[in-house]
Amino acid sequence: MIRKEKYNVAIAGATGVVGAEMAKVLEQRNFPVDKFIPLASERSEGKTVSFRNKEIPVSVLDENSFKGVDIALFSAGAAISKKFAPIAAKAGAVVIDNSSAWRMDPEVPLVVPEVNPEEAFNHKGIIANPNCSTIQMVVALKPIHDAAKIKRIVVSTYQSVSGWGKEAKEQLEKESEAIASREFKDYKNTASIKKVLPAQIAFNVIPHIDIFQDNDYTKEEMKCVNETRKIMKEPELAVTATCVRVPVFRCHSEAVNIQTEKKLSVREVKDILNKAPGVKVVDDPSSGIYPLAINADGKDEVFIGRIREDTSIENGLNLWIVSDNLRKGAALNAVQIAELLIKR
Amino acid sequence: MIRKEKYNVAIAGATGVVGAEMAKVLEQRNFPVDKFIPLASERSEGKTVSFRNKEIPVSVLDENSFKGVDIALFSAGAAISKKFAPIAAKAGAVVIDNSSAWRMDPEVPLVVPEVNPEEAFNHKGIIANPNCSTIQMVVALKPIHDAAKIKRIVVSTYQSVSGWGKEAKEQLEKESEAIASREFKDYKNTASIKKVLPAQIAFNVIPHIDIFQDNDYTKEEMKCVNETRKIMKEPELAVTATCVRVPVFRCHSEAVNIQTEKKLSVREVKDILNKAPGVKVVDDPSSGIYPLAINADGKDEVFIGRIREDTSIENGLNLWIVSDNLRKGAALNAVQIAELLIKR
Repeated sequence: MIRKEKYNVAIAGATGVVGAEMAKVLEQRNFPVDKFIPLASERSEGKTVSFRNKEIPVSVLDENSFKGVDIALFSAGAAISKKFAPIAAKAGAVVIDNSSAWRMDPEVPLVVPEVNPEEAFNHKGIIANPNCSTIQMVVALKPIHDAAKIKRIVVSTYQSVSGWGKEAKEQLEKESEAIASREFKDYKNTASIKKVLPAQIAFNVIPHIDIFQDNDYTKEEMKCVNETRKIMKEPELAVTATCVRVPVFRCHSEAVNIQTEKKLSVREVKDILNKAPGVKVVDDPSSGIYPLAINADGKDEVFIGRIREDTSIENGLNLWIVSDNLRKGAALNAVQIAELLIKR
Repeated sequence: MIRKEKYNVAIAGATGVVGAEMAKVLEQRNFPVDKFIPLASERSEGKTVSFRNKEIPVSVLDENSFKGVDIALFSAGAAISKKFAPIAAKAGAVVIDNSSAWRMDPEVPLVVPEVNPEEAFNHKGIIANPNCSTIQMVVALKPIHDAAKIKRIVVSTYQSVSGWGKEAKEQLEKESEAIASREFKDYKNTASIKKVLPAQIAFNVIPHIDIFQDNDYTKEEMKCVNETRKIMKEPELAVTATCVRVPVFRCHSEAVNIQTEKKLSVREVKDILNKAPGVKVVDDPSSGIYPLAINADGKDEVFIGRIREDTSIENGLNLWIVSDNLRKGAALNAVQIAELLIKR
C-alpha cells in the first residue's frame, strides 16, 4: 500500500451492526481518513452514517464504488464480499473483509494483529478478518502456545446475539419484553415474535450458530477449528468446539480447556498473559473478580480469568475468555489490520 | 425399610423451589403417601402447601418433627440437613437429602436410580441426592461408560437460576423487567436491584456458581468432579468442569466432551442412549432438532443431542445434555430413590 498522509476509506455494509462499529472505531482511533465512503445496499438509500460529527450519506454499493478508495472494510455478508471484494481490489483498494467468504482461501491472509501481523503484508488485495469467537480465543492462546505449545483445545462458547445482526438483537428484545409484560408467566411461548435465530433466545440457550455441516458440527464450530489452525499456523492443531447462543446483547464468553506440551504453572500463565498484547488478566476469584460479558461491552481488550490448572490431564489448563464481539471480534480487529498496513 | 401400603412422607424445606417440586412429583407419580408432612422454618409459619387438592399447613421443623415419618425428603440447605437428617434417621425415617451436606460422606450412598440403584440399599438412614448438574451428566454418560469406558470428561455448563432458589429467579425477573422498561438502553446498569447471584444475570453470563475453593474451582465445579466419581464408582475418573450461570429460568444445559477407551461410532452412541433408562435422544440437527432448555421444562427425561465425533482426539465425542434441574436434577431423582426403597 502506497504510504499517504490520509486514506480514502470505504465501509461496505456501513449501516449494519459491525459497519457502524467500524466507523466508530476509525473515529476513536483517529485513523487518518481522508474521504469516508459508507456503502450499503439499495435498501439503505437515503440513510446517513455519522462520522466525525458529520452525517455522511450512504452510497449504493456497486461496481463503481471503489474508484480512488485506498482501504475497503467489508461487512455486508459473504455473498457481497465474494462478488465485490475482487472488484474493489482490482480498483486498487486493499479489502479487509469481515465475512467468511475469503478466510480459508490459501491466497488470502487471515490476520489477527496480535498473533500473525506479518501475514497482513502477504495480501493480493484481500485480507480476511477472522470470525469473532476465533479472534478472542487466539489472542488469549497464542502467548501460551509460544511458551508451551498447545496440543489440544476444547472450547464451549456463550455467544451474544449481536453477532447475528440487528434483527437478532430485536428478537431478544421483543421476546424479553413480551415475557416481562406478562410477568414472566408462560415464558416459553413467543411464537408470535419474528425469529431470525433458530429458536426463542430469551431465557433460553441455543446450541446452533450458523448452518450445520455434513459432520453435524455447525459452520461456527468449524470456523473455531479451521481459522484457529490457519492463524496459529498449526494445520494439525487439535481443536473441538461447541458454539452456543445465549441471551446476551453483546460480548462473547468462552470456556476454554487446553493441554500444553510443556508444563506451565497458573502463575506462569498469568505472567505470560500479563505481558501479552491485547489481553487483560481479570482473575481474583476469591474477591469475585473474573471477566463478565456486561463489563467487556465497548472495551478493546480480550479479558481472561478463571485460570486454573486442570488436573484431569497432564499439563491441562482451564480459562474463561471474554471480549466484545463487535470490537475485537470484528470492527476493531479490521481497523487494526488497516493500521498495520499504513504503518509499514 | 418396612414395606407398607402407604408411607408418611415429610418434606423439610417444603416451601422452597425444590420442596414444592417434590410435593408435585409425589402427587404426579402417585407415590403411596399416607400422611403428608410439609416442614419449614419459622419464617414459613402459617403457610400451606398444596397436596392432592388439599392445603396442608406447614409445621415448623424441629427435633420432634419426625416421629412416625417413614421417608423424609430434605431440601432446606446443608446446615439444616447436617443438623436434622441424623435426628430424622434416629427417629426411624429414611432421609433422602438434596443438600450437599452428606454427599461425599463415605457412609452415605449418593444415588441416581438409573446409574447406581443398588447403592440406595446400603444406607444407614441417610441417602444423598446428587447435585443437579451432576445428575443429568451421569444419566447420559453411564450407558456410554458401560459400553466403552470413559477416560476423561470436560464439561461446560449453562445453568438456570432456579437452582439458586426463588430469590435468584426474582433477581432475573426484576433485572429483565427494569431493562425492558427502559427499552434495553443502559442494560448494564441494574445496581438498584437486589442481588443474590454474584452479579447481574439478565443479559449476562456468570462463571461463578457456589463458593470458590482453594484450587480456584467453584464448589459447583468440584461437585461435578467428585460426585461423578462417587456415583460412577470410578474414584480416579478424569473430570474437569467450568460451571456458568445463564439467564434461563429453568433447566440446565451442558456441553460435554468425553474420551472413551473403546471406539464408538455416533450411530452406536445413539443406539446405546436410545435403549438407556431416563434419557431421550433429540438429535436431528439438519432439521434444527436438538435439546433446548425451554423444551425440557417440566419434563422428566435427560435430553441428549448434538452427538458428534470429536476428531481432535482418539475416541472423542461431544454431546449436548439438557434436563430440568428441579425435576431430574433434584425433586424427581429424590422421589425415584424413595420409589426404589419401597419397591424392594
